[in-house]
Amino acid sequence: MKLIITEDYKEMSTVAAQQLLGAMHNEYRTNISITAGSTPKGVYELLVPLVKDKKYFEQVHYYNFDEIPFKGEEESYGVTMTNLHNMFFGPANIKREQIHVLDGTNYETQDERIKADGGLDFVLLGVGADGHFCGNLPNTTKFGDLTSKVNEDATPNMVDILLAEVGGEEAKRPDYYVTMGPKSIMQIKKLVMIANGKAKAGIVKQLVDGIVTEEVPATLLTTHPNITLIVDKEAASLL
Amino acid sequence: MKLIITEDYKEMSTVAAQQLLGAMHNEYRTNISITAGSTPKGVYELLVPLVKDKKYFEQVHYYNFDEIPFKGEEESYGVTMTNLHNMFFGPANIKREQIHVLDGTNYETQDERIKADGGLDFVLLGVGADGHFCGNLPNTTKFGDLTSKVNEDATPNMVDILLAEVGGEEAKRPDYYVTMGPKSIMQIKKLVMIANGKAKAGIVKQLVDGIVTEEVPATLLTTHPNITLIVDKEAASLL
Amino acid sequence: MKLIITEDYKEMSTVAAQQLLGAMHNEYRTNISITAGSTPKGVYELLVPLVKDKKYFEQVHYYNFDEIPFKGEEESYGVTMTNLHNMFFGPANIKREQIHVLDGTNYETQDERIKADGGLDFVLLGVGADGHFCGNLPNTTKFGDLTSKVNEDATPNMVDILLAEVGGEEAKRPDYYVTMGPKSIMQIKKLVMIANGKAKAGIVKQLVDGIVTEEVPATLLTTHPNITLIVDKEAASLL
Amino acid sequence: MKLIITEDYKEMSTVAAQQLLGAMHNEYRTNISITAGSTPKGVYELLVPLVKDKKYFEQVHYYNFDEIPFKGEEESYGVTMTNLHNMFFGPANIKREQIHVLDGTNYETQDERIKADGGLDFVLLGVGADGHFCGNLPNTTKFGDLTSKVNEDATPNMVDILLAEVGGEEAKRPDYYVTMGPKSIMQIKKLVMIANGKAKAGIVKQLVDGIVTEEVPATLLTTHPNITLIVDKEAASLL
Repeated sequence: MKLIITEDYKEMSTVAAQQLLGAMHNEYRTNISITAGSTPKGVYELLVPLVKDKKYFEQVHYYNFDEIPFKGEEESYGVTMTNLHNMFFGPANIKREQIHVLDGTNYETQDERIKADGGLDFVLLGVGADGHFCGNLPNTTKFGDLTSKVNEDATPNMVDILLAEVGGEEAKRPDYYVTMGPKSIMQIKKLVMIANGKAKAGIVKQLVDGIVTEEVPATLLTTHPNITLIVDKEAASLL
Repeated sequence: MKLIITEDYKEMSTVAAQQLLGAMHNEYRTNISITAGSTPKGVYELLVPLVKDKKYFEQVHYYNFDEIPFKGEEESYGVTMTNLHNMFFGPANIKREQIHVLDGTNYETQDERIKADGGLDFVLLGVGADGHFCGNLPNTTKFGDLTSKVNEDATPNMVDILLAEVGGEEAKRPDYYVTMGPKSIMQIKKLVMIANGKAKAGIVKQLVDGIVTEEVPATLLTTHPNITLIVDKEAASLL
Repeated sequence: MKLIITEDYKEMSTVAAQQLLGAMHNEYRTNISITAGSTPKGVYELLVPLVKDKKYFEQVHYYNFDEIPFKGEEESYGVTMTNLHNMFFGPANIKREQIHVLDGTNYETQDERIKADGGLDFVLLGVGADGHFCGNLPNTTKFGDLTSKVNEDATPNMVDILLAEVGGEEAKRPDYYVTMGPKSIMQIKKLVMIANGKAKAGIVKQLVDGIVTEEVPATLLTTHPNITLIVDKEAASLL
Repeated sequence: MKLIITEDYKEMSTVAAQQLLGAMHNEYRTNISITAGSTPKGVYELLVPLVKDKKYFEQVHYYNFDEIPFKGEEESYGVTMTNLHNMFFGPANIKREQIHVLDGTNYETQDERIKADGGLDFVLLGVGADGHFCGNLPNTTKFGDLTSKVNEDATPNMVDILLAEVGGEEAKRPDYYVTMGPKSIMQIKKLVMIANGKAKAGIVKQLVDGIVTEEVPATLLTTHPNITLIVDKEAASLL
């Protein structure tokens, strides 16, 4: 694992964008998976003007790695794709045929579809203070899992998590979500994980200390042969 | 993980040799690590005449990944290097400068030396019926370990294991061994694991089933983005 | 360029087969192009039993790089594909869907079809005493050519060449052939070129001396970043 | 060859910087060669603040690919290294041990030193209106050349060229320069060539048209398996 400590959130975003753009500059088809959420907001703000309507990135294909459906709207984008659409796919004018949606209807074939597409070349990931990545939470996930469905009874607080994810609107609360599993993510050729802020200092310390335990799902990724962890000074404050 | 099921031990050895030779044919320096023990005997029998005195393999560098010293002879080759020397390095006339020895005197710098050499490109591994690989045994090893020393008190039966490794001669029994850890092995670009015989059918089933647990150390390797598991029919009999 | 000098034709064939098998052992789709003719006969004799009915090579896709049609039989295999079928595809039981035929009907889209398939990963090539490779002969070919058609009036002796290629049977003599061009071949990730016998000693010397000239088409390939030239002692006798 | 047409010089510089930064983000040693001259000025202006004092780029090693000595000052930096120092190495605070100087004293071993260092991973190149790249001018260079010395009598106008290169000061005019040759550059894993302005429209058209001829040295590079040509609208105006 290569550890990059940056001055601040802005530099963290810049370095992550550099790595993403580096992976995207390719002559042949390039498959990347990118993360939703608040951490990568700065990355997408940098990327949008650099990617929008650029023909030289038309060979890049995008994959979401998890999805939380809005109840009763399973045919539409869920929380993740809505967020990715708003932050990146929309403003960057990414063509529909370059976007490969994972959702509740097709999660069972996600791993084989990716393999048939030649595998993922790159993933941009965040990490939670509790060590979750994608939808792989402590106690919901085993290291050996491929893409799978996690139901509302997976953990005692899962109903609350799902409710929060849809903005607290009970009518939209789904009873499951889907996520690529730890083993799915480990198959990707290059992993870049970003973290910023004091709230992440504890998990960053755990990742750098190097203990690998299922109770902190992201620790598995520290064993990947090509992973870069990019953190700002605050997230690095316990190192 | 790519699974290759072969007719028999001979074909398992042939396919492993094909992969090893493929990795060795390179214009630039190539770093590989190879396994001692009985499983790879057939691989080395195939390799020796193909590698011996061949100038086109002179850019290949070899690394052992574990070592059990003979007590009182820590300056000499231990069990692993003696075995590799007898099976391969000796008969294939590998030059001393192409061999990079790991032992009790230098294990603490193994991971950084390998990194300075550009990383390992390839490893050939066996697997034990108990799921151990290299010297990573159940209960001695954590997934997050790099190269480390395992002492005779690591597990209740470790004294017996060490005694058996040196041929039952108490005077030669060491009180430790050294091994690259699970995280060290995961850093390697390509992993090839071989297993044959009915005794391995259980562990092979576990590896293919895909549960990843520290109690079966080799299960971690199934998450590597570039691993091939080559097994004969008997080892595949429970699949 | 890496130069490998072998004892004899047998070792030349063995080393070429090692490189080919190394490239074929892959988890994802692998695209290779292989040569017809007499030089690779030994390679295919080694390969056939190692590849026949082996499920672990089912992700390998094969492409011929030139074709000389039999006149009046343009719908059937020409000289190259017939030869490849007899030496390798047939005896090795390669499935039809793994074989991607280049012929007079589709040569204009060969380069873009290969690009859409992800590019060629490996090519096994021979070389003529006159420095030709594939169907790129002195005076028929420019270094910058992609896949193209060469007509019977391309050089004064082309009619004779075409006649010889179809076994001297005038009724079958075509008035053109098709070939991937020098630039097409240069796009391939790894090139392996084989040559044996005293008749090749002159061209091998030219390739090693390193002058690059369109009059000796194969000299271009010596500039490729990943090419291995495998020659037996006789072909190396002028070095 | 991948062709990227940008709106203007600024975007050309941005896209080249993206590719350079992508190559530089690596865990292991990365060897890159970069160009002096006026074309890349915008690239270095972007790079300097992104690279200066960044520990995460400390594994990057830099190589100049040509050098024109100042007469009587052969021990000091020549025209190329002075320019690179002023534009990039100096302002970006690159450490001396990361810089590998090619000059008149060591050009004969440049190719083997690079090979011993593991090969070059990336080169950023300009192109002249006459099709020259590095110090490979029409009529001074053969496609098959490795790193070599070009003397003042190489072409009728070489004395004038050398005089112009040292700013017209006759006392400083050297009687030779050194340059990596076409074959040296072709060995590099990834090539990125930049061109801007109307004066380059003719050569860009030649590169895209695809004829490969020694009279226009840069045409050879269009056969490389991994080259990207980045040009602004003006340089693309004849396409």
